[in-house]
Amino acid sequence: MAAAARVTLADIYRAHERILPYIHKTPVFTNSTFDKLIGRNAFFKAENLQKTGSFKARGALNAVTHSTGNHGQALAWAASTVGLKCAVVVPRDTPQVKKDAITNYGAELVLCEPTPQSRQETCDRVAKEQGLEFIPPFDHHDVIAGQGTIAMELLKQAPDLDAILVPVSGGGLSSGIAIAAKAIKPGIKIFLVEAEGKMCEKSLRAGERLWPNPPRFLNTIADGIRMQHLGHLTWPILLELAEKDVFSLSDEDMIKGMKFTFQRMKLVIEAASGAAVAAAMSDKLAAMDKEMKNIGVILCGGNVDIEKLPWY
Amino acid sequence: MAAAARVTLADIYRAHERILPYIHKTPVFTNSTFDKLIGRNAFFKAENLQKTGSFKARGALNAVTHSTGNHGQALAWAASTVGLKCAVVVPRDTPQVKKDAITNYGAELVLCEPTPQSRQETCDRVAKEQGLEFIPPFDHHDVIAGQGTIAMELLKQAPDLDAILVPVSGGGLSSGIAIAAKAIKPGIKIFLVEAEGKMCEKSLRAGERLWPNPPRFLNTIADGIRMQHLGHLTWPILLELAEKDVFSLSDEDMIKGMKFTFQRMKLVIEAASGAAVAAAMSDKLAAMDKEMKNIGVILCGGNVDIEKLPWY
Repeated sequence: MAAAARVTLADIYRAHERILPYIHKTPVFTNSTFDKLIGRNAFFKAENLQKTGSFKARGALNAVTHSTGNHGQALAWAASTVGLKCAVVVPRDTPQVKKDAITNYGAELVLCEPTPQSRQETCDRVAKEQGLEFIPPFDHHDVIAGQGTIAMELLKQAPDLDAILVPVSGGGLSSGIAIAAKAIKPGIKIFLVEAEGKMCEKSLRAGERLWPNPPRFLNTIADGIRMQHLGHLTWPILLELAEKDVFSLSDEDMIKGMKFTFQRMKLVIEAASGAAVAAAMSDKLAAMDKEMKNIGVILCGGNVDIEKLPWY
Repeated sequence: MAAAARVTLADIYRAHERILPYIHKTPVFTNSTFDKLIGRNAFFKAENLQKTGSFKARGALNAVTHSTGNHGQALAWAASTVGLKCAVVVPRDTPQVKKDAITNYGAELVLCEPTPQSRQETCDRVAKEQGLEFIPPFDHHDVIAGQGTIAMELLKQAPDLDAILVPVSGGGLSSGIAIAAKAIKPGIKIFLVEAEGKMCEKSLRAGERLWPNPPRFLNTIADGIRMQHLGHLTWPILLELAEKDVFSLSDEDMIKGMKFTFQRMKLVIEAASGAAVAAAMSDKLAAMDKEMKNIGVILCGGNVDIEKLPWY
């Protein structure tokens, strides 16, 4: 697939038709206590309640119904849903709950070292040995289109949104959401929410990829958003469509966001989702234009090991 | 109010109209892994996502919009919603999260000893001193009618239910649900789910209240269902409408139910809700008629202190 063939709203609509029979149209929650706290209205898109416990089910299913492949818990589920063979490569230190889910969905689990290079090498080897197609977790046309379906749904459920806060790792989720949301509602602002150390804002402001090579994982409790680099497909999309202001959250911030969501909203979310909640509660957002009244918050997943919650 | 004036479906419809502008119509969740596990289809009514984190908001709001009063976190919220003064009496050992919520809703918090007698005496004293009306937590016409609205909603959301599993303490929730569900669908079975030691089944089979006096609290992690006695209004309703088979759950069972719901359904629930989930997973249910295909599970609340989850 050529990088030039950028994902369009039409691709995202087609993805939605393709995946809708299998996925949940997840609810959007509001919380009056939270709104009082932040002085705006927040709309939480609950992808933690999605099949496989995260938004990844959307992109993975769109990719396997379109081609074939292997990645993550979502790909394992997607492949079993449409009856394909699947091997999933994950870093050794992946939470046990995610590993168990992968094998429960009938996929072969292959462990690699916790670095982006080892992951890539292992993927390439397994794909070659078993004659499988490699589907990367974010830098893939169909994956981006699948994740974009979230914004389609969200803007039907909460049409008055002024901005969306979206956790970013490789950028599949955020670029899909940015394409759909900006096409449907050009004035909407897309804010990236990252783990500290990613330094997205610096690259976005400079207009170039300032990340060091080789790619590395960030040191964060949020295993869902630990890629430092944006992808090669996702980077130009986000450079064009996302705000230059990026929310950068510490482990402590994410825990605060998780705790609020567990305790007051009764939703189990993982640290990457906690980052989006913490961004909504942050001084940085508080200092922004008060006219930005209605904020979408993407709760991207709920795959945290409840035996090892980070505040214990 | 005379005990003779039993709550009717019409009362429950009127209660629903009265409270609907203020409460959440909570979603019903399904989970394919759970259904495979139990060999039936489960429909989880998520009252943990209700205002104040439990079904109690319904009965309390119906009671205060109808009269005035004071009980629990829900009454504090209900009173503040309609602008009434409120004092709430809770046992000293109530989870801090519930105490905080009560004062956050603007009510006065009054502590009593952890026995039913101390609670009654303290309520009577505070009501007299402050000129307030006493609204008991379950043995009250309007409270029962308010809780019954759950079954109205649930049977619209999942019309094919064959049975409902409902946690029981004083019986406000279960008698309200029994009245509504049996009136709408006479063939439906209402199963009570209790903490071990309540021994409801013995009383129901004998047709008389066999509990020792004075009333006592059970020794259970589920603070939401620790009354041993059914109420004097709720008892005859449940004797007529509930099944004689009662599900009796240990702390360990409840934790198992909680863990499944946290980990796989991404919902924060308290131990009383965990009891209903555990009942659905139990050998006792597994041994029952396989024609009973579609099971409603009432997740009555989510007010657990996430700093003190019972499996840590």
